[in-house]
Amino acid sequence: MIILGVDPGLAITGFGVVRVENNRHTVLGYGAVRTSAKETTAQRLETIYRELSKLIAEFKPDCLAVEELFFNRNASTALAVGQARGVAILAGSHAGLPVFEYTPLQVKTAVTGYGRADKEQVAYMVCMLLGLPSAPQPDDVTDALAICLCHGYNANDWGRGR
Amino acid sequence: MIILGVDPGLAITGFGVVRVENNRHTVLGYGAVRTSAKETTAQRLETIYRELSKLIAEFKPDCLAVEELFFNRNASTALAVGQARGVAILAGSHAGLPVFEYTPLQVKTAVTGYGRADKEQVAYMVCMLLGLPSAPQPDDVTDALAICLCHGYNANDWGRGR
Repeated sequence: MIILGVDPGLAITGFGVVRVENNRHTVLGYGAVRTSAKETTAQRLETIYRELSKLIAEFKPDCLAVEELFFNRNASTALAVGQARGVAILAGSHAGLPVFEYTPLQVKTAVTGYGRADKEQVAYMVCMLLGLPSAPQPDDVTDALAICLCHGYNANDWGRGR
Repeated sequence: MIILGVDPGLAITGFGVVRVENNRHTVLGYGAVRTSAKETTAQRLETIYRELSKLIAEFKPDCLAVEELFFNRNASTALAVGQARGVAILAGSHAGLPVFEYTPLQVKTAVTGYGRADKEQVAYMVCMLLGLPSAPQPDDVTDALAICLCHGYNANDWGRGR
């Protein structure tokens, strides 16, 4: 099973592509889609949709996994992230991929065993589990890989095959 | 000029289609796209995108106008609305429509002359200006029509033609 994990944002959308086979995880790719605040919202959303659609065409993942986000902080940040997230989910859905959503608690628990783990601990475990020399930057990329791992473990547990 | 105005939401996305000609506004259509909380987020976003795309194909608007939203309240509401808004903007953008965003202040000022007008005043003026016997329900539909009027006046002022 190939998983496309996405950590959506209007300025930076992190992505990771991970193959899960016999409980072994292999990174196929990762990176970030960046958009500029100089562009219109429409242009930025188009870029995110287009780049994710390209990734789906290239890596042919079996599913899309995104984090379910919760905001206590800035509601206007939540709105901006929501727009990017909506477009990311639509790109997966339009390509016929099932979309899975995980809470930050689920992602952290899957990767570190501890639901309140900090960013450093998550980054450390992502590197360990995927055999990466250092955590990909920006953080959004590492988070996207963590989401891939989370879905990998969950899909496995649930007997959804690989 | 034909304007598609959209007031996006995950459960209810209000829309209005208004033709502006010689400073005269004619309603061509209005309504709401509804999705159920029983569906997945992906299904709900797909529905919003698909229905708006159908409206664009049917009414062939020259542009899409949406409200720029600000939330002081619930950030998780902002996230949900953001997703719907992102997908709505993408539907317009994918169809080649320019997308215009207006703040609630701009919409209220355009329609009532008063930036802090309440919902009832906006609804009253939307009916007056568009010759409707009563304000379309739910509120999201009336809001979408108000956004159409706002863009109609602004596009006119800016000499963007009709």
